Amino acid sequence: MKTERLHQQLEFIKEIDKLKYIQRKTRLFNSNRHENDAEHSWHLAVMALILSEHSDVEIDVLKVLKMVLIHDLVEIDAGDTFLFDTTKNHLNTENELIAAKRIFGLLPKDQKEEYIKIWQEFEAGETNEAKFAKTMDRFEPILQNASNAGGTWTEFSISYHKIIDKVKGIKLGSTTIWNYTLSLIDNLRTKKIIHD
Amino acid sequence: MKTERLHQQLEFIKEIDKLKYIQRKTRLFNSNRHENDAEHSWHLAVMALILSEHSDVEIDVLKVLKMVLIHDLVEIDAGDTFLFDTTKNHLNTENELIAAKRIFGLLPKDQKEEYIKIWQEFEAGETNEAKFAKTMDRFEPILQNASNAGGTWTEFSISYHKIIDKVKGIKLGSTTIWNYTLSLIDNLRTKKIIHD
Repeated sequence: MKTERLHQQLEFIKEIDKLKYIQRKTRLFNSNRHENDAEHSWHLAVMALILSEHSDVEIDVLKVLKMVLIHDLVEIDAGDTFLFDTTKNHLNTENELIAAKRIFGLLPKDQKEEYIKIWQEFEAGETNEAKFAKTMDRFEPILQNASNAGGTWTEFSISYHKIIDKVKGIKLGSTTIWNYTLSLIDNLRTKKIIHD
Repeated sequence: MKTERLHQQLEFIKEIDKLKYIQRKTRLFNSNRHENDAEHSWHLAVMALILSEHSDVEIDVLKVLKMVLIHDLVEIDAGDTFLFDTTKNHLNTENELIAAKRIFGLLPKDQKEEYIKIWQEFEAGETNEAKFAKTMDRFEPILQNASNAGGTWTEFSISYHKIIDKVKGIKLGSTTIWNYTLSLIDNLRTKKIIHD
């Protein structure tokens, strides 16, 4: 029984290796090299550990870690969705659910159910843990873009107001991180690195 | 106060981006592409979540996650140490401590102390959490090498007995995973992919 479970778990562990090939639009800090989803997920996990004290409410850090570590696995099948791509966001939801069922479906049934639930909780963004996990997910590319003279915002000519609209969910997780985010983006606007 | 702490934490979060450039000897599953330390750390974290039930004793999974997520950060300064490199292992310990003090030293004092302690606990490998974290760290390249016709073992002509000697720590964390490891390595030996 233990061995059978282990075999199923290892099928999952091998499959998720593919996350290392999924390239994001954002680039590493002060760099031209694109980040991949596995690197991104690792960075969010460390950020969640270090920054959890800035959550406005008490959170279960282990649950946040589970969320950020697995939140992008569906992209193995469904591909990366760029935050500012207006054509893809909605269509993708259905594909992502199919992907979640296939990928988490490699696990033993109890773990499959647990992780699909964790992923759906993250996607819904309603619980305190999901809000903080999403705060991390929005905050990392902001730090990267700020270090890369506007990064994807200048590359794809995203306006100040559009950026604020897309990242405003950060304030649901942390007032401190939201205030810092605003100061970063305002600074790029003042310097005319991003347009109104 | 909150903002000052955040600034220190963000210096750390930017600095550790460099982990994404540290290349390991091992390659991704069924692949020629080398893995980097950030991808490796992410994979260990998901493995720890999924495989923690195979620990021989009760473990604090959050602590294991902290260990695997930060265990390689010292390599930003000290470089990757290949498990089978006999010339480097010992010399590196001192360099790694200097690296730990510099990198974790970017954090606020309480977090600096917490994470140096976590890293030292991992390195010492004596607590149940450290044993299980080390089991993950040893097990991932075994899975990769097995998927790559011997991988680094054939590339660097490592003998069966040397491999067993270097990975035997796995049994301190999990009998189930150790038995599976033996079956994988024995199979490569039977097929003469690795030599005695």
